[in-house]
Amino acid sequence: MLYIVGFGPGGYETMTVEAVRALEDSDLIVGYTTYVDLIRPWFPEKEFLATAMKQEKERCLLAIQKEEDGRKVALVCSGDSGIYGMASLVYELAARDEALMKRIRVIPGVTAAASGGALLGAPLSHDFLTVSLSDLLTPLEVIKKRIRCAAQSDTVICIYNPSSRKRGDYLRMACEIALEYLSPDTVCGYVKNIGREGEEAAVLTLEELRDTQVDMFTTVFIGNSHTRNIHGKMVTPRGYRLEEEAAAAQERT
Amino acid sequence: MLYIVGFGPGGYETMTVEAVRALEDSDLIVGYTTYVDLIRPWFPEKEFLATAMKQEKERCLLAIQKEEDGRKVALVCSGDSGIYGMASLVYELAARDEALMKRIRVIPGVTAAASGGALLGAPLSHDFLTVSLSDLLTPLEVIKKRIRCAAQSDTVICIYNPSSRKRGDYLRMACEIALEYLSPDTVCGYVKNIGREGEEAAVLTLEELRDTQVDMFTTVFIGNSHTRNIHGKMVTPRGYRLEEEAAAAQERT
Repeated sequence: MLYIVGFGPGGYETMTVEAVRALEDSDLIVGYTTYVDLIRPWFPEKEFLATAMKQEKERCLLAIQKEEDGRKVALVCSGDSGIYGMASLVYELAARDEALMKRIRVIPGVTAAASGGALLGAPLSHDFLTVSLSDLLTPLEVIKKRIRCAAQSDTVICIYNPSSRKRGDYLRMACEIALEYLSPDTVCGYVKNIGREGEEAAVLTLEELRDTQVDMFTTVFIGNSHTRNIHGKMVTPRGYRLEEEAAAAQERT
Repeated sequence: MLYIVGFGPGGYETMTVEAVRALEDSDLIVGYTTYVDLIRPWFPEKEFLATAMKQEKERCLLAIQKEEDGRKVALVCSGDSGIYGMASLVYELAARDEALMKRIRVIPGVTAAASGGALLGAPLSHDFLTVSLSDLLTPLEVIKKRIRCAAQSDTVICIYNPSSRKRGDYLRMACEIALEYLSPDTVCGYVKNIGREGEEAAVLTLEELRDTQVDMFTTVFIGNSHTRNIHGKMVTPRGYRLEEEAAAAQERT
């Protein structure tokens, strides 16, 4: 059995009950070094194997190999196991063996869009684009087009991997595209180190976001034209008509 | 204290540990009738209050009123509490009282994009649009524009609320827009009753999806041009270059 477990933003309590059970049921837990260090204290009896950053393929191959050796393996991903997670790569590498495919079980988790959104308020109550600014695997032109399309159609944008040492100015680029269509006052937010030490959440305008430097452990939210800052919370109404109704009600009082 | 709890797709084990703790800590649990019936057996000691469908505002006002009466209240939402959940409406209704705002705690959950994705394979490993086809609160033209923009920019589309009695042909409409930009063979999938009785997952082509009738308890996934059907699993590669590399490797063998 090969579990691919999304363990959520990073605290024991933000794992699902089935993620906890899958890890308890495994006899070997494989993951990126930082995540293995995070999870190890919760399951001190287990064996762990860690691989370095950018070694995604090696990590998946290691998990598959150990499973084929007869171990019960859990491959851990932060957030969800599917959304920018390892599940797709494992399936691609397992495609050669249908029996192996059937021994894979994907355990979903709380992705940063949800956990970061909860800290900021409720930015994703309406349609949104989830986009990664990492151009390691995707041409930059495709990324830019997606951001442009979302801003054009007044869709909230949730940004994963907004920055890295080599891509220090990519968030600025994304904001500049959004500013072609959205007001500089558009309500935005970001969350750093969700559920971990150094957790930080901020609500700010699109113009301010453009001039903000964030790191790779940050998730960024660009609101739509209806998103509001309510006492420091970033809140996107569930629908357009509802908001009009609320405004009308406020006028009457 | 007013917890807004996303309880995930519908099984006890797909709740997070903190969702379980928040419900245990509450003395009153408020929710839509169907969800209250689902959760009640897991917390038989608790008091529950149920409101009917489409009574979202009344449900939130009830939760707020009970909290102001001094109760510890949990308002439950399926999936995540933010993504198409009740959190934004609660914040909007609580805006009149900053102290009340501070007593609200949003507990995120596993949204249908993640739980449905896990059942189908790994459809959301790359950028995606999350869009609801319900035009109860959003003009249909805005919804159509968002789908068009996503299809134009080769973005995976995850559809919530794809159908209802009044909107029986909306999924067909969405597929027809996508077909203007994507091949009829584009890999798609849908999941019904995730984690509940009658759970059903299917992987099919965009053309087949267009002619499929789904209900409101279904989540639909339209792949991008790189999404593959691997032994019945819907898998979107994590990046474009990686896929090319995999194809090259396959050619060499």
